Amino acid sequence: MIAEDLKRRAEDLWEKYVKHEFVERMRDDTLPVDSFKFYLVQDSLYVEEMVRSVIRAAASMPFDMAYEILSKIVLNRDKGMEVHGQLERELGITGKGKMTMTTYSYTRHLIYASTLGWPQFLAAWTPCMWGYSFIGKYVVATKNMYFKRWAEFYASDDYMERVSVILKSLDRFNGDASELSDLFKASVKYEIMFWQSALDNEPTI
Amino acid sequence: MIAEDLKRRAEDLWEKYVKHEFVERMRDDTLPVDSFKFYLVQDSLYVEEMVRSVIRAAASMPFDMAYEILSKIVLNRDKGMEVHGQLERELGITGKGKMTMTTYSYTRHLIYASTLGWPQFLAAWTPCMWGYSFIGKYVVATKNMYFKRWAEFYASDDYMERVSVILKSLDRFNGDASELSDLFKASVKYEIMFWQSALDNEPTI
Repeated sequence: MIAEDLKRRAEDLWEKYVKHEFVERMRDDTLPVDSFKFYLVQDSLYVEEMVRSVIRAAASMPFDMAYEILSKIVLNRDKGMEVHGQLERELGITGKGKMTMTTYSYTRHLIYASTLGWPQFLAAWTPCMWGYSFIGKYVVATKNMYFKRWAEFYASDDYMERVSVILKSLDRFNGDASELSDLFKASVKYEIMFWQSALDNEPTI
Repeated sequence: MIAEDLKRRAEDLWEKYVKHEFVERMRDDTLPVDSFKFYLVQDSLYVEEMVRSVIRAAASMPFDMAYEILSKIVLNRDKGMEVHGQLERELGITGKGKMTMTTYSYTRHLIYASTLGWPQFLAAWTPCMWGYSFIGKYVVATKNMYFKRWAEFYASDDYMERVSVILKSLDRFNGDASELSDLFKASVKYEIMFWQSALDNEPTI
């Protein structure tokens, strides 16, 4: 599987991402709720640009792939947005907020990748989507009810189905995985920076 | 002048950029030559993407502006490339090198800005071009012959003429400077990260 190959090429970084201090602290319930709120605000801003990039990239996909990704992922976001929206309301998050340099940089990378072609875009998108299924399953054991509800969504079969669509699509790439490695790796690095940014309370632009 | 307005809105950051520790250490000749070499390698990678972005942005400029920017800046880079090339040869820099996340992020930002329209692109481009004329004039007093030759180019009238083309072009924007402020500010932040990255010897992707 191409995604496995890409993950192997970034193995050390991958561990730093899916077992980041932010993740560990959600699991053992020592993460300050303000860091979680900070994360949710930046994540909403991130997801908005991510979805636009998926749609842009879909325009250059084989039609059956575009159809599956648009219908099963982009147009099927209700559950995820519902969990996100509920958490935001309960935690008193209002308004959109501004991006940090980390969120801005990561989303510019996705926008860029979305103009290169579908294999390039999928390689850049996979760390976020796939990584969260590992993280969800890991964090779901937490005692904190906010973090648990957040994790339950990413640990769900519903979510894993979406990830499978991406992994399966990526496998249709005929080239060598090494061509996609830097895009994948850059996203893993951005994911690490994304967690760190929430722990550090990074200023917005 | 719109550029002055944008600089005022980012005043604290601007000072951190043009008087960054890296700059101070070039001036007082305490910068390790390896940090300077690191910088030169990343700067070459940056400039290549910057020039591509200028050309892309030129496609949506009024024709006289595109003509002036392409002829006076893009196609008139001999002197700068000559200084850069000489320094690279004398310092034993061979090959292209790979980008750091900082260089990658900054150049993705320029690529993005180049698709928004000419005022947006010029706002994102100005901190680099204009800032280096301040930095050149400041660093040129150094006793280090490498840093001095580097600075002499950016302190020159030849370089200032190019900067003037950009500042004058930006003044043709009819909208409110506040619309361009975040793009300008993001570039100033990337410039600060760019110096810091060379001091820290940031890993490549």
